[in-house]
Amino acid sequence: MTPSTTRRAQEIEPFEVMDVLSRAHALEAAGRHVVHMEIGEPDFTAPEPVVEAGVRALREGRTAYTATLGLPALREAISGFYSAKFQKAVDAKRIAITSGASGGLLTVAALYVNPGDEVLVPDPGYPGYRHFVRAFEGVARPLAVSAADNFQPTAAMVERAWTPRTRGVLLGSPSNPTGTLITPAELKKIALFVEKRHGVLLVDEIYQGLVYGAEPSTALGLPGEVVAINSFSKYFCMTGWRLGWVVLPETSVRDFEKLAQHLFISAPSAAQHAALAAFSPESLKVLEERRAEFARRRDFFVPELRKSLAVPADPGGAFYVYADCGGDAKRFCLELLNQEAVAATPGIDFGANGTARCVRFAYTRPRPELEEAAARIRRFAASWRAS
Amino acid sequence: MTPSTTRRAQEIEPFEVMDVLSRAHALEAAGRHVVHMEIGEPDFTAPEPVVEAGVRALREGRTAYTATLGLPALREAISGFYSAKFQKAVDAKRIAITSGASGGLLTVAALYVNPGDEVLVPDPGYPGYRHFVRAFEGVARPLAVSAADNFQPTAAMVERAWTPRTRGVLLGSPSNPTGTLITPAELKKIALFVEKRHGVLLVDEIYQGLVYGAEPSTALGLPGEVVAINSFSKYFCMTGWRLGWVVLPETSVRDFEKLAQHLFISAPSAAQHAALAAFSPESLKVLEERRAEFARRRDFFVPELRKSLAVPADPGGAFYVYADCGGDAKRFCLELLNQEAVAATPGIDFGANGTARCVRFAYTRPRPELEEAAARIRRFAASWRAS
Repeated sequence: MTPSTTRRAQEIEPFEVMDVLSRAHALEAAGRHVVHMEIGEPDFTAPEPVVEAGVRALREGRTAYTATLGLPALREAISGFYSAKFQKAVDAKRIAITSGASGGLLTVAALYVNPGDEVLVPDPGYPGYRHFVRAFEGVARPLAVSAADNFQPTAAMVERAWTPRTRGVLLGSPSNPTGTLITPAELKKIALFVEKRHGVLLVDEIYQGLVYGAEPSTALGLPGEVVAINSFSKYFCMTGWRLGWVVLPETSVRDFEKLAQHLFISAPSAAQHAALAAFSPESLKVLEERRAEFARRRDFFVPELRKSLAVPADPGGAFYVYADCGGDAKRFCLELLNQEAVAATPGIDFGANGTARCVRFAYTRPRPELEEAAARIRRFAASWRAS
Repeated sequence: MTPSTTRRAQEIEPFEVMDVLSRAHALEAAGRHVVHMEIGEPDFTAPEPVVEAGVRALREGRTAYTATLGLPALREAISGFYSAKFQKAVDAKRIAITSGASGGLLTVAALYVNPGDEVLVPDPGYPGYRHFVRAFEGVARPLAVSAADNFQPTAAMVERAWTPRTRGVLLGSPSNPTGTLITPAELKKIALFVEKRHGVLLVDEIYQGLVYGAEPSTALGLPGEVVAINSFSKYFCMTGWRLGWVVLPETSVRDFEKLAQHLFISAPSAAQHAALAAFSPESLKVLEERRAEFARRRDFFVPELRKSLAVPADPGGAFYVYADCGGDAKRFCLELLNQEAVAATPGIDFGANGTARCVRFAYTRPRPELEEAAARIRRFAASWRAS
């Protein structure tokens, strides 16, 4: 008898961090105070005006399906956001509202990945990249990124890895798990090369607003077939609302819409109405204050962590720091949790390139907890090195 | 140069009804009163206790990611619902909360459909069935259903259509677009055959609660690998909340979870908290009153429609009636809209088997509008037959 589920289902890997999370919950049930640094979501909730706009939408019954590409007003608001923040003219017609960035990545993969097509993805990188490609029977080819290149792909890597089967590149900046950014110059070189090969450049910009000591940027406007995937989850602190967007080349919008009509029909309605309030000056002020808070946390936590572990690259954005524990990182994470009640994510979730020695910490906790975590990690790391 | 998007994207068909909808909006902008019978969603919003539970969740910031399989309390509540309503013991561990039934169908297709696998689907039937199968490189094989079999597959059809490549059957009861139900006896025969062939039986039960003159039923408990796909959209009147669930065989839950972790992470959080209130006696009372209202509408509208058009099968559930207009149904829909401002869905959206002559009407409008629509359709049908 054949196995009951698909090869796809068997090949797609679970998140190792889920084991950490289960163990963390067990410790908490037993009364321990766990510092959660394993989860990729802000500890802040949506700004007040967003919440209240959501409340109004629920109470007024604005909860029917919307158009598949999203509320026209929200698409216009995002277009306005690109214009105000990035001085980029992005026609609202090119913007599709999605069920989180997941809905965006999913539909983009369905749109561009034929069976057997290769897509180049950074390793380490967000695991969804390779799994979305695999889900639609494509082949994700890892680009081995490292501290030498700030954990971001280079045009030279892309050129070397490109084959006649390659369909495009999918990368994220700021990166999950390393928090590092690609330089605009290198991204442009990649775009030019991809354009020459008639490929697509897919850029995950879901941590776009969360950069520190620099201003956010976008891949939009680069030459060739460029798609930007974005989200209300991170900068806008709306993870569980499941709302994102994609900016497409005009020629691909119709096919994206056809796919989305079936794959998710439309993004959550009240969340869309709520998100209209995310671009108000009042909300943006709150969000910029939080960005400053994340910057302060990074500035505190990264040097602290370096007293315990090697941090091979300076994180410039997102809310992650990626450290080398010098040994079996999965064991490191489980023992750190058991001994010191600090939860972190084993690097192996993010690929195969040196990831088995690495750990991702999310500095999504308030300063006092980060101080506590830093002390605990330091104590643990001393015993770890000695073992 | 190769086309920019995938074969998948090019082959998946758009909804013809979207043309109707655009035209309807244009007429409304010009001041016409359009009776909307084209959209597959209730005209009711969620019951008050659900809305208020959603409001509390938003205000209390219960808007982070949930576990991928959903809030444990909601999985338990659904398990309790099966027990109370269907006298079926369904372990909460087998229940996965999804981003609408779309998220459920999507993940189930990813879970069971290998490239080249055939899945048998009714024609006419919900277009998503064939498109989800196609999206994952499977082949949807139509089962030509008709009035003779109440527009539902029979075990004999399944046996005839089964090949060594067939992976399973995906059907919906009550059916979209016909509103007809499969008999428990026939469904059991299908289940027994599918089990013998080691296939999977996927049953879309999203209109489960909306049956008239009979009590709702479920495929759960039938022999073999049976999956039920369900939703809060229709009976619970929560379309735009994007919340559904799937009941899986215990052995497939882990693989479903792995896929869902990447494909949609988790279903909308506030919607999950809100849905906990959907099973309260207060909510269920409201929902049963609405069910009675849909029954009254059906009992009024179907005989009225039969004065104008042939209705080949009595609809026993959902909120659809499927009529034969005796000619080009797409033209029928556009002219009915232009001349009489009644919007309906061309049958061609639902397959290729006789669908070009058929039209789906959704009786999701209050009685006075249905009366108006019936009169307008009668007037139009007279001129249509004469033309």
